[in-house]
Amino acid sequence: MQLLDGKATAKALKEDIAVSVAEIKAAGGRVPHLAAVLVGSDGGSKTYVNNKVVACEEIGFESTLIELSEDASEEELLALVDKLNNDDTIDGFIVQVPLPDQIDEDKVTLAIHPRKDVDGFHPENLGKMILGLPTHISATPNGIVELLKRNNIDTSGKHCVVVGRSNIVGTPMAILMSRNANPGNCTVTVVHSRTANMQEICASADILVVAIGKPEFITADMVKEGAVVIDVGTTRVPDESRPKGFRLTGDVDFEGVKDKCSYITPVPGGVGPMTIASLMQNTLNAINMS
Amino acid sequence: MQLLDGKATAKALKEDIAVSVAEIKAAGGRVPHLAAVLVGSDGGSKTYVNNKVVACEEIGFESTLIELSEDASEEELLALVDKLNNDDTIDGFIVQVPLPDQIDEDKVTLAIHPRKDVDGFHPENLGKMILGLPTHISATPNGIVELLKRNNIDTSGKHCVVVGRSNIVGTPMAILMSRNANPGNCTVTVVHSRTANMQEICASADILVVAIGKPEFITADMVKEGAVVIDVGTTRVPDESRPKGFRLTGDVDFEGVKDKCSYITPVPGGVGPMTIASLMQNTLNAINMS
Repeated sequence: MQLLDGKATAKALKEDIAVSVAEIKAAGGRVPHLAAVLVGSDGGSKTYVNNKVVACEEIGFESTLIELSEDASEEELLALVDKLNNDDTIDGFIVQVPLPDQIDEDKVTLAIHPRKDVDGFHPENLGKMILGLPTHISATPNGIVELLKRNNIDTSGKHCVVVGRSNIVGTPMAILMSRNANPGNCTVTVVHSRTANMQEICASADILVVAIGKPEFITADMVKEGAVVIDVGTTRVPDESRPKGFRLTGDVDFEGVKDKCSYITPVPGGVGPMTIASLMQNTLNAINMS
Repeated sequence: MQLLDGKATAKALKEDIAVSVAEIKAAGGRVPHLAAVLVGSDGGSKTYVNNKVVACEEIGFESTLIELSEDASEEELLALVDKLNNDDTIDGFIVQVPLPDQIDEDKVTLAIHPRKDVDGFHPENLGKMILGLPTHISATPNGIVELLKRNNIDTSGKHCVVVGRSNIVGTPMAILMSRNANPGNCTVTVVHSRTANMQEICASADILVVAIGKPEFITADMVKEGAVVIDVGTTRVPDESRPKGFRLTGDVDFEGVKDKCSYITPVPGGVGPMTIASLMQNTLNAINMS
């Protein structure tokens, strides 16, 4: 088994982006500027947003963190989105999810200008991905594709099984892996809670992408000998032995599976860092979008 | 084997739409108005467009057919699209594909206002479909879903194999069949030209949707006993015994397969009429979209 080291690959990708930023600076241009909006004080969301701000600093982006209180109204957030859409000094921004109950996430997604939607959640960006047009591709699926590419994982003609059908990971991942591109050209199967023979289908995968949010859902009997395993799950499981009182747990039983597969992403240090690097890539691309 | 009679199901759907049109009229409202743009004189395209105009007449829609010559410029077509976008008397319009080589199809797709894009090809509409938001769903996949629904075909937990990964049929079909809806909730596999074990995967399908454009590609050995077979193919195969010199041929070897499956769509008279009825449904919906 070989680790698919997302941390190392993300570092390499961020170094490439830093080179582009340095070139922009040297040419007297304005460096990319990412804004992040955090509503409330959910621990996980705070960590994610902070990691994004740190990544901006590492590569030379400007960044702005905007915090709204837990009881911010939908109106207040939509007004902020409108302001950011019209702020020429900001190239891209994200609104960290999940949002508090009083705010309709779909409304917020639709309100963000597609050009500044560096998370790649806006329907216009999702649709352009289907059509193969230049666009912001959802950061997690895009990060996984980049991870496969930079680690020279051959995907053409392979059977890729995607576990989970969410709008932001499972569904776009399935589309990217099936399209005529490299990475891509996989035969793709999407499985989910209604799938009857989950074990059998997962065990037939050459490439298994798991994004179902159930800690250690994938056990050794569900993994084919030599498979490539990509674990998107990051659930905080209570663990009193840890300083923070929890440990981050993936959707794959890493210890049980690791000796069976050819490659596997660790949690943490796998898909997470690639998602952030991919967000930076989208922000860099945003400066040239119209 | 039972025929999945697209002609009869489309008739029932169109009758439902006609009732809505009559209600609009009775209330003193304006009936839906569909415009169709035909560039050049390709025989197949002409037939499709004419069938759409006839369907409008049947159900009480207003319709307008606009014909441009084979050598129309991209600029000319884009100007027409702009005019139709801004014409308040037109609720929806289609530009029949394929277009002549001098015109970039993507540019035309992007130029059509999503609200008037009753073919459901615009990226915003594709993306809204992924998000499960109200939208114009691509007419062919939407028609197939309606065909399954009106014929009480159970899809939940079934294995649906989609043959072909096109933007307008295969990819949206796969998304619709996997989402949490009825019809839907299938385990979905997309296969295509790069798929290694095509025969084996197709033969594992409970529901087989074929949209690959290769006449009689699916033979009996690729179909499971009792499967539901949906044939999207309509290739004009030369046939001197026919008055028009060709016959419409599906992607499935109907004669070889028919005794093995539980349901099968004929060609013609299967998916084709459902696509047209679905286009009418989208046009009716367009009058209430903002």
